[in-house]
Amino acid sequence: MAQKKDAVVLLSGGLDSSTCLYEAKAAGFSVIAMAFDYGQRHKIELSSAEKIAKTAEVKEFVIAPLNLRVFGASALTSDEIHVPKGGTDLDKNHHIPVTYVPARNLIFLSMATSLAEARGASTVYIGVNALDYSGYPDCRPEFIEAFKKTADLATRAGQQGSALQIITPLIDKTKSEIVKRAVELNVPLELTWSCYDPVLIDGKLVPCGQCDSCILREKGFHAAGYSDPALPNI
Amino acid sequence: MAQKKDAVVLLSGGLDSSTCLYEAKAAGFSVIAMAFDYGQRHKIELSSAEKIAKTAEVKEFVIAPLNLRVFGASALTSDEIHVPKGGTDLDKNHHIPVTYVPARNLIFLSMATSLAEARGASTVYIGVNALDYSGYPDCRPEFIEAFKKTADLATRAGQQGSALQIITPLIDKTKSEIVKRAVELNVPLELTWSCYDPVLIDGKLVPCGQCDSCILREKGFHAAGYSDPALPNI
Repeated sequence: MAQKKDAVVLLSGGLDSSTCLYEAKAAGFSVIAMAFDYGQRHKIELSSAEKIAKTAEVKEFVIAPLNLRVFGASALTSDEIHVPKGGTDLDKNHHIPVTYVPARNLIFLSMATSLAEARGASTVYIGVNALDYSGYPDCRPEFIEAFKKTADLATRAGQQGSALQIITPLIDKTKSEIVKRAVELNVPLELTWSCYDPVLIDGKLVPCGQCDSCILREKGFHAAGYSDPALPNI
Repeated sequence: MAQKKDAVVLLSGGLDSSTCLYEAKAAGFSVIAMAFDYGQRHKIELSSAEKIAKTAEVKEFVIAPLNLRVFGASALTSDEIHVPKGGTDLDKNHHIPVTYVPARNLIFLSMATSLAEARGASTVYIGVNALDYSGYPDCRPEFIEAFKKTADLATRAGQQGSALQIITPLIDKTKSEIVKRAVELNVPLELTWSCYDPVLIDGKLVPCGQCDSCILREKGFHAAGYSDPALPNI
């Protein structure tokens, strides 16, 4: 049997990146999962990422510390900017949400490219999707394509003829399609964490149910005809 | 008097980036200096960076923690790979040195782009130069150009018509020309640190004098006709 090729998968512990990880496995890759401790207020996603990486039996799980809190300027990394609630932030098509972290995917993909080169891997998976790119500029296909060209110019691997492959299996999918695909792939959905702004109830952190990410997730499960196994039984 | 515009300057504390910082000042920018604690074995450069930032009276000095040691694969971040000595690494034109950190400038520029956007700045200075790009792929003009396009696609600022400007004042200069320019600009050369592999002598860290970076620096000072004020008096 030929040895499996390695792929670096950006894993946040959410629905999308976890599904992405299982797509990489299904495509036959041996997975190096990479998560970031970037000072996010929903740091609980890191323990989800770790559980998912373990369940998926990845080859390696790396948490890269990356203190974006020194930058501020996003609701996800600043205590002074509130996470919007009630879907107000979803309805404005030309508006970039306050939860946007400046150039986050540019940084994450750069780190993934570096890790891939350090490990001799030439494939990176990232779970950007159609719904994301209505708001976040660094989730669009043209950004991914430009990044790939830049990365090939930046790396020894790229210069030696081994071009980086960036795979975005979710890019054209709606949240509902992602939920269906996750179920097909046996993603441990009960372990995934999407909420940007967890609340403490009876000593346990639970999703707020009101931030953009919770609302998108709930709509996705509803449209797919599934109930969300990660929600607490209240 | 009009308010000065802000520029993010990538500052390692070495000759090139320090000269770059003084170029930004000379061009009339208010400087946000950004250094990285990336697990480099020559961590002493960070205290040089801090002293230079202070001397240059920058608006802000940010040290971003960024643990590239988890990646390994470079002599600068791994204890298991030795820093080459005696110039052996300089003579092979088509060879990428073992001191290459995978995609380092890609990561540094991504972080600088994020910080610039967070601070409302649209200019980034980076001290890549002609000598560097014979060896490191991410020091070449085509990489910088591709990065700029990618960054504009990645950021809110870029999407809202405020394109990122990446200024590389040293890109066509030899080390000797950089030394001459540094002297013209009154760069505090005695504070700069270039050595990749400092040695402890009488309880004090001093440049090894033998790594690529020390040798390039020495040749540059010699060709420019100056003695290096950062060298210890032995």
